[in-house]
Amino acid sequence: MIRLNENYQNLKDSYLFYNIAQKTKEYLEENPGKKLYRMGIGDVSLPLASAVCTALHTAVDDQSKKESFHGYMPECGAPSLRQTIADYYKKRNVKLSPEEVFVSSGASDELGDILDLFSKESTALIMEPAYPAYVDANIMAGRKIIHLPSGEANGFLPGPSAELDADLIYICSPNNPTGAVFTKEQLKEWVDFANERGAIIIFDAAYEAFIEENLPHSIFEIEGARSCAIEICSLSKTAGFTGTRVGYTVIPKDLERGGQNVNAMWVRNRTTKTNGVSYILQRGGAAVFTPEGQEQIHRNIAIYKNNAKVLMKVLDELGITYFGGKNAPYIWMKCPNGMGSWEFFDLLLREIQVVGTPGEGFGACGEGYFRFSTFGDPEDTKEAARRIKELLSK
Amino acid sequence: MIRLNENYQNLKDSYLFYNIAQKTKEYLEENPGKKLYRMGIGDVSLPLASAVCTALHTAVDDQSKKESFHGYMPECGAPSLRQTIADYYKKRNVKLSPEEVFVSSGASDELGDILDLFSKESTALIMEPAYPAYVDANIMAGRKIIHLPSGEANGFLPGPSAELDADLIYICSPNNPTGAVFTKEQLKEWVDFANERGAIIIFDAAYEAFIEENLPHSIFEIEGARSCAIEICSLSKTAGFTGTRVGYTVIPKDLERGGQNVNAMWVRNRTTKTNGVSYILQRGGAAVFTPEGQEQIHRNIAIYKNNAKVLMKVLDELGITYFGGKNAPYIWMKCPNGMGSWEFFDLLLREIQVVGTPGEGFGACGEGYFRFSTFGDPEDTKEAARRIKELLSK
Repeated sequence: MIRLNENYQNLKDSYLFYNIAQKTKEYLEENPGKKLYRMGIGDVSLPLASAVCTALHTAVDDQSKKESFHGYMPECGAPSLRQTIADYYKKRNVKLSPEEVFVSSGASDELGDILDLFSKESTALIMEPAYPAYVDANIMAGRKIIHLPSGEANGFLPGPSAELDADLIYICSPNNPTGAVFTKEQLKEWVDFANERGAIIIFDAAYEAFIEENLPHSIFEIEGARSCAIEICSLSKTAGFTGTRVGYTVIPKDLERGGQNVNAMWVRNRTTKTNGVSYILQRGGAAVFTPEGQEQIHRNIAIYKNNAKVLMKVLDELGITYFGGKNAPYIWMKCPNGMGSWEFFDLLLREIQVVGTPGEGFGACGEGYFRFSTFGDPEDTKEAARRIKELLSK
Repeated sequence: MIRLNENYQNLKDSYLFYNIAQKTKEYLEENPGKKLYRMGIGDVSLPLASAVCTALHTAVDDQSKKESFHGYMPECGAPSLRQTIADYYKKRNVKLSPEEVFVSSGASDELGDILDLFSKESTALIMEPAYPAYVDANIMAGRKIIHLPSGEANGFLPGPSAELDADLIYICSPNNPTGAVFTKEQLKEWVDFANERGAIIIFDAAYEAFIEENLPHSIFEIEGARSCAIEICSLSKTAGFTGTRVGYTVIPKDLERGGQNVNAMWVRNRTTKTNGVSYILQRGGAAVFTPEGQEQIHRNIAIYKNNAKVLMKVLDELGITYFGGKNAPYIWMKCPNGMGSWEFFDLLLREIQVVGTPGEGFGACGEGYFRFSTFGDPEDTKEAARRIKELLSK
């Protein structure tokens, strides 16, 4: 009899956001017609930029006519889009060749797929609190996981230490869920650590567009990163592509281990296991990087940043400790009165119909914290902030 | 130091279609301006159906307005599209629940991703000649592969036999590259074999829409398949989606091994490793299944079928043995005069600028055969057929 992948049996029963969806669904069934203020799952609420929509329409028109029709796309991405993205890195003084950029269906897909490149015997280091899929995807592969907890003491920005026996190091900065952002100096410590050990960093830069201060947007701003890092990016939050699906991944040609070149391996993976990203979506993705597209997406990001300000103001007034909100679209607050994070979730849902994300879902050290997404509707965010203030002032 | 996936070192140097692309590129560099007649890679040439384009435009408009904007899609597919595809199976008397249908980014992506469900210790049986990615994806996983050769004696439709120690059985029908189609009775033998052994069949139905005769379109037309089969489908060839990317996968809820339910595992995989298929593309995919969409795509399929007839007529006149062409978009011909398949490739490219696919690329037993795709431009196909006749009449 065939053996299935038995590692799936080591997964927890179900996924964080699925649980949240179930709980809110049950609440709505018990309380039909109640309006919810959804700041749980990090989904965006503003429509696609008009430059993107125009490009998508043009691409659909191309697909409707024989002379402009596109069949199979190059598996690693349209050469012009790979070049465009490489150029985007220039403003951070990061030099990439287009062959180092891979167009993807988004960071979520890529974070799952990329693990195929590593031996099952490699150990994954996950700084927690963390996006739960980092852990689950490695459990599915049967990989040993080192959970590196962080907390208020280090500002949720842990550093390396000699005893960490890690091969694959996940860094998400700006962080989901805490909103904390590593400095250049802090990232340099991790890059040096990875190079010394021969480890590889998977740098999740999905939220780089939210950085305001002088902090690194890309791991490749750090000297030495080209020989130890892969960067996974997404247009989901940058340009509202959560339901549209385009991302990109950077793998430098210098990244080699044990005589195997990781960039070449990924080319081989993509040419075997995909037929590339939709022509239509790649055209839409390319429009994000035009001057018009950049101006439009930054207008949307400013709206989300204002949501963050509205929430931060209330938390400041309440004297509640929180992280993020400034250079990141997430606010990570301490639950009041020592409440558990699922307990606080239930309180907010039942009392004020506000949906957030319990910190415990991001790892054990997230217990006692709560994440708010700032991607919601501005009016809803204002009303949610008002309700939070009213509830927690009692 | 991290260990990379060392199985990649067991892959052959590069991929069949990549090699063909390189050879044609070199030819064009040496002979600038020469027109090529491309019948190599199975890419379509007709534009998307107008019903599909209308749906895509509508979906882009939805994404441009806040009130109709769609963020994250359900990871397993839009419920309405899952239902639509389940309904599509009714015409073959196959009953599926929508939860048994998963919307994908296409068969190629899914054939790679689905392997995550199976233990590395399971053995893959690949009937050859075969789509090379079946083999490569299993080499990447370090899985033992049994190559089951087929040939003219069994019409390229091999049957099971007791000594085949297989856990994962790939069946592609209509077959790529041979165009051969299994009968119900032949598939029943494989289904019984899989159920007896506790094996799982991966049934690649990418070409089902090309079947004219009374032959099974789906493995689920066969009694007993619900407890042993996964079906992977695609709109690439059915509806010209090679560059647009939508497919679907059927995993019955009855499919269990060793107490693990495969449908539930795939839900867990998708909710962890993807954020679903683009809303825009799913709307385009749904339009394929409308009466208008079906009528339009079948008009295109008829054009490709006429290409097949044009080529078959010439091969008949030349007295060349071939398979496929009738219920499949591929023609699998015997190379003339005992030529090797890459030798014949070079001959056609250099002498008459026709690009086909050497049979050897599909496995050792494909040596001495050659595949023509019938997805090309009708006028080009006519001219290619004329040139083939002229060259091989000499």
